[in-house]
Amino acid sequence: MNRHDIALIGFGGVARALAETIRDRGEELTHELGFELRVVAITDLRLGSLMVADGIDLDAVLRMPAGETFAGKHGGTAAPQNDYVIRNTTADIVVEATFTNPIDGEPAVSHVRAALESGKSVTTTNKGPVALAGTELNRIAAENGVTFAYEGAVVSGTPVLRLAEKTLAGLQINAVRGILNGTSNYVLGQMELGMTLEDAVAEAQALGYAEADPTADIEGSDVQLKVVILANELLGANLTTADVQRRGISEVTAADIVQAAAEGKRWKLVGSAFRNAAGGVTAGVEPVALPVGDPLAGVSGPTNAVSFDTDMLGTVTVSGPGAGRVETAFALLSDIIAINAARAADEAVAVGR
Amino acid sequence: MNRHDIALIGFGGVARALAETIRDRGEELTHELGFELRVVAITDLRLGSLMVADGIDLDAVLRMPAGETFAGKHGGTAAPQNDYVIRNTTADIVVEATFTNPIDGEPAVSHVRAALESGKSVTTTNKGPVALAGTELNRIAAENGVTFAYEGAVVSGTPVLRLAEKTLAGLQINAVRGILNGTSNYVLGQMELGMTLEDAVAEAQALGYAEADPTADIEGSDVQLKVVILANELLGANLTTADVQRRGISEVTAADIVQAAAEGKRWKLVGSAFRNAAGGVTAGVEPVALPVGDPLAGVSGPTNAVSFDTDMLGTVTVSGPGAGRVETAFALLSDIIAINAARAADEAVAVGR
Repeated sequence: MNRHDIALIGFGGVARALAETIRDRGEELTHELGFELRVVAITDLRLGSLMVADGIDLDAVLRMPAGETFAGKHGGTAAPQNDYVIRNTTADIVVEATFTNPIDGEPAVSHVRAALESGKSVTTTNKGPVALAGTELNRIAAENGVTFAYEGAVVSGTPVLRLAEKTLAGLQINAVRGILNGTSNYVLGQMELGMTLEDAVAEAQALGYAEADPTADIEGSDVQLKVVILANELLGANLTTADVQRRGISEVTAADIVQAAAEGKRWKLVGSAFRNAAGGVTAGVEPVALPVGDPLAGVSGPTNAVSFDTDMLGTVTVSGPGAGRVETAFALLSDIIAINAARAADEAVAVGR
Repeated sequence: MNRHDIALIGFGGVARALAETIRDRGEELTHELGFELRVVAITDLRLGSLMVADGIDLDAVLRMPAGETFAGKHGGTAAPQNDYVIRNTTADIVVEATFTNPIDGEPAVSHVRAALESGKSVTTTNKGPVALAGTELNRIAAENGVTFAYEGAVVSGTPVLRLAEKTLAGLQINAVRGILNGTSNYVLGQMELGMTLEDAVAEAQALGYAEADPTADIEGSDVQLKVVILANELLGANLTTADVQRRGISEVTAADIVQAAAEGKRWKLVGSAFRNAAGGVTAGVEPVALPVGDPLAGVSGPTNAVSFDTDMLGTVTVSGPGAGRVETAFALLSDIIAINAARAADEAVAVGR
């Protein structure tokens, strides 16, 4: 039986949801997927580091009382020795699940680089390293014969990058447009019901959609990072955030909303990238009043969606959750399945040589 | 360079669109996909049969004047010798593109069976053989080490079966619901604008959406076949059409439409299958007044959509074209790409033995 040993770098909600899935559905997944999953290392800012080569007792870790750390446990220390663990763990797959830094992507970029350089495949749902250092990190992965996978960096577990790779091959994708931020989409929906922007943001915060500082959601910088990823992955561009024009929803007024409704339109914060006449890619983030017939117009609340405009197939749209700890943990699982498939293919070829 | 030789059984609009794609974009596709495509056989009820082992001149065939047949051409006869061609062609992939027979799937079932038995992979967009004989045909494919692929049998080129296989692996799919017939969806949309069912059907016929006999579209038997495929492929059921309760849109009245609109709902013809409490799968086709927040409610006109209800990811919905000759030809191309990948994996393993 094939097995993957996993290191979890960062043990917040999403990583914990993956650990719970492995604990609760491990045998079922092994049966379905044809490989076993075992967690052999965990690091976390608050908990410290834990390395157990023959497998961590996930149930014990998941039940640790608040305030307790890994210090004193077999294989544990109170310090989050991320770099040491990434380089020295027996894991073959590193799950990078620390926070998103929209400026330089650190420390996640360094974590991913260290893992790939030491011959480990990486999955992350962290936009930072993908949007800000994706080209470099993909090159390092290729040089080391490992996989860098990041389905969850765009729309949580909803398949977007893998959908394009696996189901749209053979098509030319000419443009991609998306509703890529659930908080701003929820806020616009509440404004349609007559709420002010400020009240709607406060409500989104109360519901857990919006961060304490909602600026990245409302002003479009979260979407901007995702547009960089979509443009580079799906249109073969090599954009940075500076190439993506950005305007947020704070400029949308109650009067705008009323007027759009009268015209049969709905305001949405749309991230887009398209092949331009000069042979390059133009990308941006802006609020747009979409006609109700647009496949993105009906996408409501915290749901996200991406439309692909293609040559043979016209427009194909996928919608699904844009956040959520279990939903995002599925993106990690989906990446692990892809990493397993890539390794199986490599091994078959290697044996054949 | 890897190459696939193709036999086209049936040379109607979809098969011609595939031939045009190979003629017009062959080099580009070879570069992108890593394999070459060559058509070595064509059969058609009106044109006869043509077999040219070193490749048919597609441009010449596509420019044949109406009324001309393959008789007298090198490798050609006036008779459509489907079974002979399928068994004796040098093709490794057979494209089954004859008409859909909703009763017993013939002659397509026999075409597919003959191809698989003679060691050729098959792609089809024909619902008949998949819905009515899919279990048997998949078994024959497995026994012969070849692939039976049919992405286009459900929603044209819009990825549904391959989306589930490639991007939702690891999830438990609990239910699948879809708008699976563009004609009935268009008709319901026109009825919302005040048109009668009869006038809307006539308009759909004039626009080329509806068949001369629209019964299969309006009364749900087209959707019924698609629901059988979805239930069996995605939920592991083993249903036949008799297991799928069916009601069409002819029972939806103008008053129903008005009342639904007043309640913020839209009538849609929904095909669905879900795991029931008894451990089986319940499937049906019926008109449903969906609340506008439902991901299927906003799907308008000839567009189709499928929603997957899953354990970890909640609801994911894909929408896109449900018909069209080029759109459906993409389903064939997508299947050919999958057949190539399956063969490459088999060969790598075989070399490794």
